[in-house]
Amino acid sequence: MKNFTRRHLAGGALGAAAAVAAPSVARAQAKRWRMVTSWPKRLPGPGMSAERIAERISAMSGGRLQITVHAAGEVVPAFEVLDAVGGGVVEMGHTAAFYWQGKQPAAAFYTTVPFGLTPAEHVAWVEAGGGQALWDELYAPFGVKPFMGGNTGVCMGGWFRTTLKGLADLRGIKIRSLGLGGEVYRRLGATPQTTAPGEILTSLQSGVLDGAEFVGPGTDIALGLYRVAPHYYGPGFNKPNGTGECLVSLAAWTGLEPDLRAIVAHACAAEATFALSEMERLNAEALAALIERHKVKLETFPDEIVAAARGQAVDILAEVAARNPLAKKVHDSYTAFRDRVAGWSRVSIRAVLEARGA
Amino acid sequence: MKNFTRRHLAGGALGAAAAVAAPSVARAQAKRWRMVTSWPKRLPGPGMSAERIAERISAMSGGRLQITVHAAGEVVPAFEVLDAVGGGVVEMGHTAAFYWQGKQPAAAFYTTVPFGLTPAEHVAWVEAGGGQALWDELYAPFGVKPFMGGNTGVCMGGWFRTTLKGLADLRGIKIRSLGLGGEVYRRLGATPQTTAPGEILTSLQSGVLDGAEFVGPGTDIALGLYRVAPHYYGPGFNKPNGTGECLVSLAAWTGLEPDLRAIVAHACAAEATFALSEMERLNAEALAALIERHKVKLETFPDEIVAAARGQAVDILAEVAARNPLAKKVHDSYTAFRDRVAGWSRVSIRAVLEARGA
Repeated sequence: MKNFTRRHLAGGALGAAAAVAAPSVARAQAKRWRMVTSWPKRLPGPGMSAERIAERISAMSGGRLQITVHAAGEVVPAFEVLDAVGGGVVEMGHTAAFYWQGKQPAAAFYTTVPFGLTPAEHVAWVEAGGGQALWDELYAPFGVKPFMGGNTGVCMGGWFRTTLKGLADLRGIKIRSLGLGGEVYRRLGATPQTTAPGEILTSLQSGVLDGAEFVGPGTDIALGLYRVAPHYYGPGFNKPNGTGECLVSLAAWTGLEPDLRAIVAHACAAEATFALSEMERLNAEALAALIERHKVKLETFPDEIVAAARGQAVDILAEVAARNPLAKKVHDSYTAFRDRVAGWSRVSIRAVLEARGA
Repeated sequence: MKNFTRRHLAGGALGAAAAVAAPSVARAQAKRWRMVTSWPKRLPGPGMSAERIAERISAMSGGRLQITVHAAGEVVPAFEVLDAVGGGVVEMGHTAAFYWQGKQPAAAFYTTVPFGLTPAEHVAWVEAGGGQALWDELYAPFGVKPFMGGNTGVCMGGWFRTTLKGLADLRGIKIRSLGLGGEVYRRLGATPQTTAPGEILTSLQSGVLDGAEFVGPGTDIALGLYRVAPHYYGPGFNKPNGTGECLVSLAAWTGLEPDLRAIVAHACAAEATFALSEMERLNAEALAALIERHKVKLETFPDEIVAAARGQAVDILAEVAARNPLAKKVHDSYTAFRDRVAGWSRVSIRAVLEARGA
């Protein structure tokens, strides 16, 4: 991945990022920050987004703001990123909002929700539909300012060992599935599990799991799940988006010069788009490899399952909204935006994809 | 629009952009550039993208790079932006690549092509699929470096006074339609016209035009075409994307400090995403207003028209590719990316939109 990053930064649209030579005057005043993450070192996807955000900030600031990226466990464990940034242990973090839904139920809306916004719609809601202001409000009590800082794109519904003919085939099975999507599977009669990525394959092999969702083809191909669970199901109603988040300590943010604030914000925005672009390319290549080389069977969930899942998702989101007044505000903003944008997405993106055909 | 921009920049994710107070030391060394555009002053959409790119650069550079934005005709006419930037008359430009297809046929690929890439797929091709390197190669002979710097999103097929039942209804009619999409209409028997936006309504009223495509609902609503041509057709096979481009003179680019280069690149990347987000919101709102308030009839092109158009588009793109070796390289890169990403888009974005239903 190191080579890829260098090649992209040297040759791509944002070409100057790697070639920065900080003027000596600037280097003398350099501010040094630490960024903790929920990822292993340089994990393809989110881990590389964290690295690239640091590189972008260094390049744009001429080295005036230097950020060291730390893997999960190096400074704090994966699931203590929010507390570490908010508590002032470090200045930045790179993680995913849905990890914090136990602390604030509405956080889930900022990663992905079942039958929710697609990646482009999600970015539109955050940037132009009021989503960012509510996100700021949601995270202010934790002492952090949130930014979009990556995206794993539309996900798949899951890998299964056998075909699913209807709802009956979901009842009683054990499936690795996280977040609100996992809750949908639970209400359809399955038992969701939070198996760690490195243990999914062996759990499927031993029968501890009957199915598993992870992310999309570009990520999933590395796990080798197709060897024991060759039926790959879509649509990914459970996770139609996958925004990564970059956190800045509010104290550090407030103390930052205005130009460095603009640089941090733009580094995150550019990385969110680039990460999705890179994932689109990887997903397209990996899907073809899975089908052509590994003989994966691409399957579509039966209508019965999709319809039942859609109904459960409405109930689940309403329950999240009922947890507190701010969660209700986020829920209402998100679902109103989704309902309004749906009509346009149907006649625009969905219609041109259908027209393009084979 | 001024109020909107200030509100966004003050309150949004990129909040620091408007609040910049350049340190006096930096202001003393400020570099001043001019940006010429193909747009009227502060035109909603592309004109505001040009303004915001200048604001973003000023904010991130702490005022070290200040850019004055000029409307079409102020310094050079709308269609001389490429020459003015490449010739060193000014340092930057904001325009659209398909204006230059007469000088270099493959330029059209960098705005939109019939049955081509959707906005997210287009960004993925440019950022992660080899598109940017070919774009750099395509524009180097003109002395400019290109960036994505805006997006009007998926467009509509056109406004028509009557319904279209089949191919016969297109024959002999006059339709305002530009670029390669206009060429598709021509080969289906219509006569494409390049009517200026301000004259479309009166041309439809007087019968000089029978139909007209412009952009999408958020832009089109201002022209009032629904008053005389209430049948609004999709899918927008003719323009499934609408990338705006920001040009930098190669001489100016080469002379720029590395940190300012990174800042210019990131300003364009962030604006490309923000412009699309803003257009998605506007399109969703305007489509609802057109249907609910103005009683516009949303229509779908008959299959016969879409199928014939798809065939014509393949021929037209092949003819562009045959014009010169570099055009062929761009064509082959673009269509190979489209063909590979199509499989993934079908099981990801299209499938989740279908599953979301009403």
